[in-house]
Amino acid sequence: MKEKEFQQVQDIGFGSLIEKLSGYSGKKRDEILQGIGDDAAVFESRNGEISLISSEIFLEGVHFDLSYHPFQHLGYKLVTAAVSDIYAMNADPLQLLVNIAIPNKYSVQMVEQFYKGVDAACKDYEIEVSGGDTTASHQLLAVSVAVTGSAIKENIVYRKGAKDKDLICVTGDLGSAIAGLRILMREKKFWKESGQETFQPDLVDYEYVVKRQLIPAARNELLKVFEEAGLKPESMIDLTQGLVADAKEIAKASGLGLEIYSPAVPISIETRKVADEMKEDVDKYAFYGGEDYEMLFTISEKNAEKLRKFFEHFSVIGTMTAEHHEMRINTGEDKTIQLEL
Amino acid sequence: MKEKEFQQVQDIGFGSLIEKLSGYSGKKRDEILQGIGDDAAVFESRNGEISLISSEIFLEGVHFDLSYHPFQHLGYKLVTAAVSDIYAMNADPLQLLVNIAIPNKYSVQMVEQFYKGVDAACKDYEIEVSGGDTTASHQLLAVSVAVTGSAIKENIVYRKGAKDKDLICVTGDLGSAIAGLRILMREKKFWKESGQETFQPDLVDYEYVVKRQLIPAARNELLKVFEEAGLKPESMIDLTQGLVADAKEIAKASGLGLEIYSPAVPISIETRKVADEMKEDVDKYAFYGGEDYEMLFTISEKNAEKLRKFFEHFSVIGTMTAEHHEMRINTGEDKTIQLEL
Repeated sequence: MKEKEFQQVQDIGFGSLIEKLSGYSGKKRDEILQGIGDDAAVFESRNGEISLISSEIFLEGVHFDLSYHPFQHLGYKLVTAAVSDIYAMNADPLQLLVNIAIPNKYSVQMVEQFYKGVDAACKDYEIEVSGGDTTASHQLLAVSVAVTGSAIKENIVYRKGAKDKDLICVTGDLGSAIAGLRILMREKKFWKESGQETFQPDLVDYEYVVKRQLIPAARNELLKVFEEAGLKPESMIDLTQGLVADAKEIAKASGLGLEIYSPAVPISIETRKVADEMKEDVDKYAFYGGEDYEMLFTISEKNAEKLRKFFEHFSVIGTMTAEHHEMRINTGEDKTIQLEL
Repeated sequence: MKEKEFQQVQDIGFGSLIEKLSGYSGKKRDEILQGIGDDAAVFESRNGEISLISSEIFLEGVHFDLSYHPFQHLGYKLVTAAVSDIYAMNADPLQLLVNIAIPNKYSVQMVEQFYKGVDAACKDYEIEVSGGDTTASHQLLAVSVAVTGSAIKENIVYRKGAKDKDLICVTGDLGSAIAGLRILMREKKFWKESGQETFQPDLVDYEYVVKRQLIPAARNELLKVFEEAGLKPESMIDLTQGLVADAKEIAKASGLGLEIYSPAVPISIETRKVADEMKEDVDKYAFYGGEDYEMLFTISEKNAEKLRKFFEHFSVIGTMTAEHHEMRINTGEDKTIQLEL
């Protein structure tokens, strides 16, 4: 085999790979209103009922590290990741399927702890575990989840719906999940260096950020907020890859550009403290961190004002612009950073 | 940690583990007519529309071996495995989600081959790939699939529906997939022993069984057959674990026993040849082999006769009995083997 015939995924990047693969989509079905390319797929049945579905896969050593992630918390987190995709369509999650491949190094009790976390999260999000697959694995734990949801057709919010001059809004604060991860990685390093089998990590001062990393909550209240306010955003995505990556998805899908005013990006005091301690740039946490499971949505100025009366926990961080393929970060100091879209 | 607190899954078996875990099912939703415990979960929406969902996970080295399984065939096979679960409910598959975690040792081109197989299968089964997740993996390829389906409520066939005196029927022939696997494993052994980098396995004489292993087809015609015949079976399951394991599921779910008349179990001449060559018992292939993706269904004697006018490719192999927890294999030589249910 010639060398150039062996192209690694990292040579082209996952984005290009996904684009390449999106052509292999089987038989086009008219009932599928949204296939590949949003947080969830949207299906309309003959008599107009809408169902949504989304799925993800998580591998030990790639997506999670069981040396600091307790099984129960991991179970909770993976359900959060699943339902968050349904909420990001402004839809209601209904049922969850969990596939788990278990290596011999983990005990039945550990697997049960994992399911306790799944169970607790499903109770919080009011969904039922209605199936899945339980099997063996060679070395590493692998888990995949599929979640279904329902919605009224008119209420669904797509990534592609953003309009020029929409305000870009995010819920909660950003960068705290990566801050928590930085702390956990530091403690793991201390533990390894200590050479001891048991080790009590010092996490007391970092409770908020560590919790955001280990047991994040999905923004399940937004669905009700939009309903009560009698409005819906123009576009929406959940923040899992990081602000820059996820905002790009909105811009690309909508054929627009965007400008983010970086001083407006909400960052918690706890996250700032971690970045200071690590001598790192807290903006990097907020812009590239990922796994915050906050929502990013775009909405007209008028509707943003209206929304504020019903819901406090969001910040306006920028605006959509007509310049397709342009992403600008305005640092508030007469400096603008241009990013490739 | 005390030793007995570390219980491996193999100590209790996957069956017991799944039973243990089925308690952790989140919030019970009334709309879910069938949760854990059948080929697919069944959901009824407010206005009575039925949707089904099923998912599975496959790991390299556990469920497939890429040293003899071409990527394209693997893609096809995993779609077959997915849709087969929907057909086993007498329902129509609609959309597929594919999650893939790719280690660096595999190229972009290999992943594309995999998707070509997925695409071809989805065209054959008339379903659309509408989403999924593409991510990195450390060492081994991991794939999970979720498939949705639809049905009219009255048409759904559950595992639990078998009636006393129902005939037990299977489509096609059994044991050929394991026969194909035995040949592939033998050729792999030869290849390893040869010490050569390239090796041309001798598969010409084994085309039928090797195909059954590498690119099995789901029994997608049955749905139409039952519709045309104007009947439905009392219970159904797809044969993936092996005849004994899958028939047990029907018996357990229905609270019945069963008797299989072993000379009636359909076995192809090609499968018999492989067993002879391997000096193995061909009945073991048929009873324990798995992965045939044939259908096992139970049906009244009267309906079986009616069905025969519309469909030739099934064999009656036994009957359901009232003896709960009893599974008998009648060998046809005045010998009956009793198996634990």
